[in-house]
Amino acid sequence: MSRPITELALHLARAFVPYPWQPVEHAPDGPLSGLTFAVKDLFDVAGYPTGCGCPLWLAQSEVKSRSAPVVQQLLSAGARFVGKTHTDELAFSMNGKNAHFGMPLNGAAPERIPGGSSSGSASAVSNGLCDFALGTDTGGSVRAPANHCGLFGIRPTHGRVPLEGVHDLAPSFDTCGWFARDARTFARVGRVLLGDDPLSLATPRLLWPEDLWALVSPEVTEALAPSATRVSAALGGASAPLPRMRVTQAVGEFTFEALYWAFRHIQGFEAWQVDGPFIEGFGPPLGPGVAERFAWARTVTEAQKDAGWTLRRAYSDWLDRQLGPDGVLVLPTMPDIAPLAASPEDALQDYRERALRLLMISGLSGRPQVTLPLARRDGAPLGLSLLGPRQSDCALLSLVEQIAEAATRGL
Amino acid sequence: MSRPITELALHLARAFVPYPWQPVEHAPDGPLSGLTFAVKDLFDVAGYPTGCGCPLWLAQSEVKSRSAPVVQQLLSAGARFVGKTHTDELAFSMNGKNAHFGMPLNGAAPERIPGGSSSGSASAVSNGLCDFALGTDTGGSVRAPANHCGLFGIRPTHGRVPLEGVHDLAPSFDTCGWFARDARTFARVGRVLLGDDPLSLATPRLLWPEDLWALVSPEVTEALAPSATRVSAALGGASAPLPRMRVTQAVGEFTFEALYWAFRHIQGFEAWQVDGPFIEGFGPPLGPGVAERFAWARTVTEAQKDAGWTLRRAYSDWLDRQLGPDGVLVLPTMPDIAPLAASPEDALQDYRERALRLLMISGLSGRPQVTLPLARRDGAPLGLSLLGPRQSDCALLSLVEQIAEAATRGL
Repeated sequence: MSRPITELALHLARAFVPYPWQPVEHAPDGPLSGLTFAVKDLFDVAGYPTGCGCPLWLAQSEVKSRSAPVVQQLLSAGARFVGKTHTDELAFSMNGKNAHFGMPLNGAAPERIPGGSSSGSASAVSNGLCDFALGTDTGGSVRAPANHCGLFGIRPTHGRVPLEGVHDLAPSFDTCGWFARDARTFARVGRVLLGDDPLSLATPRLLWPEDLWALVSPEVTEALAPSATRVSAALGGASAPLPRMRVTQAVGEFTFEALYWAFRHIQGFEAWQVDGPFIEGFGPPLGPGVAERFAWARTVTEAQKDAGWTLRRAYSDWLDRQLGPDGVLVLPTMPDIAPLAASPEDALQDYRERALRLLMISGLSGRPQVTLPLARRDGAPLGLSLLGPRQSDCALLSLVEQIAEAATRGL
Repeated sequence: MSRPITELALHLARAFVPYPWQPVEHAPDGPLSGLTFAVKDLFDVAGYPTGCGCPLWLAQSEVKSRSAPVVQQLLSAGARFVGKTHTDELAFSMNGKNAHFGMPLNGAAPERIPGGSSSGSASAVSNGLCDFALGTDTGGSVRAPANHCGLFGIRPTHGRVPLEGVHDLAPSFDTCGWFARDARTFARVGRVLLGDDPLSLATPRLLWPEDLWALVSPEVTEALAPSATRVSAALGGASAPLPRMRVTQAVGEFTFEALYWAFRHIQGFEAWQVDGPFIEGFGPPLGPGVAERFAWARTVTEAQKDAGWTLRRAYSDWLDRQLGPDGVLVLPTMPDIAPLAASPEDALQDYRERALRLLMISGLSGRPQVTLPLARRDGAPLGLSLLGPRQSDCALLSLVEQIAEAATRGL
């Protein structure tokens, strides 16, 4: 069986890791029949090594004899595997600028970073090289590239999609998400990977988290506001402004600063638990940003991690009370459009720190979040997100379909 | 069969590419029986990919089903393969600081670069992880690391050891060489890979190329001079100073400058012929120095390459006349001991440019050169070289054995 993507496409987008092509069997029929998909190179796929965006990791990888269960689920549903995609090094970046394997092309804004760490998957889908693609999202690794590449992207409820056979970054935050160009494909994949929601979200109550909106510039809010109105209308809400609320405290336990450090400490501690032995054992020369983050992660103490967990648990409970069983946040996915690819590392680092404050809410609370490519600014895409109750993943995907359908009707 | 090197040793020296261990069969008996060897990751070895020090090259490499003939020759002679060793990226560096896979440890001067591009092979031998190791030498990639790591190293007569199954850098300069810690092992390998010399070098006439010695500092000359005297004595020469001569012209066609650019233009043109399609096709983010050299190589014109060849041929003939059938140059292998690992890239680049003037003589003339770890300076090793007539490789190895034997007798 020949490679389903031309060599030219492979090279032009630089989305795929150029492994020698090995066909992977899929069911002849199924709910995903006719769809092609790509897989971030953190997931095991039978017949391929798992490189994790790190040359020494790739070198020591065996060729896998079994695919990760989530990949197998897609194959069994009839989807056709087309290749493994680049990831930021050990998934510990939000940029998509892998120092060793290069930067996949952002199909929606070629002069801008694709975002990461699921950079190649977003690149492959945004360049039309497959219908959907798997990524992972720990602190935003699906949502950031979806925002940057103009795609639908989901970070499911933590723990809902199995991560066996997938390299961890920080397990208590890690999730398996995916990208698609259209809402229908996006939801079809969800129906296979998610099953049914155990709880129903009959009437979502849309909320406007004013503290999260305060993190983005007036220009970004202005670019996203019409989409928020359209979302509200599509979901049968009033055209009146959404009810405002806060997901952090201006003063108190749950400030952005406190939550940010809780997130960072837990993520850093876990990342070092996962990758520290490899980094100490093999001494990989990590790329810019990644090296500094792991060096920092190594310094995080158990006490800091434990304090982070105490705050995280209390915050998650507090947020549950703020949002109730049906609250769905309408928020900006990222602080802005994708930075230019030529941005210096410190500008990217600054962007990342701002982004984490938006992205961490779902991570800390384990809640699912979908981003929709509804707006544009300076010729580049900008995503609007819905963040729902835990286990409302399918309901969120249905909302996405409703919104998309309303858009095609010109609403 | 378990890996013959402990995991600890693998990690500590960082000499080996950490591929999953695949045993490679060797003859139970033979002239190299009892010896272990490592192979630079430019050579195909059955059961392993060939990574060439470049992550995207590694990704696209198939696992090889056949070993390069030179590797097979060693296995058939009873030597035992212990692993593949790191190389500078696409072999286009002299430093051993691979931006993607790291820097192998220099076993003789741990705070200094191991030299490259055959960095891992020199590291493995200098750290005692194997008895000998294969490298390639285009512009000095065996001689530089041998100098830096205190090893015997050879660049054979061009074309004498087959390079099938080995990734090229610049084929008209590429050679297959090797490293060993002791003269006996060094020569044993040669007797297997070289066969007999077609011409005999009964009485080598040692010569002192004063223009090459003028390239190194008085301190380096001083450090090497006693070794040169010992070499002369060991080979039955007078204790009187060696006859002085020049291998370049101060004024004329064959100046260092002209020869240097002939070498660079031919090497650059060929390197781009070999690796340009891959670099253009896959866009690998090349490491510091390597990126600049390939970017420059791309600009070399066919006319520059042709002019280089015209000079090269004329020079080789001229040098033949200067040296006669029995002239053997005694020269410094490198400008100095290995630079510190922390040296900035421009200091390493400067060192490289000085080194090429010493190293290019054998490359331009196709002559074999051996380097002997006879001297030290500032606690680090310094090599002295013998450069002989084409096809005098075995004779040179015998001279090396004679010199080493004399040294053990305290001469």
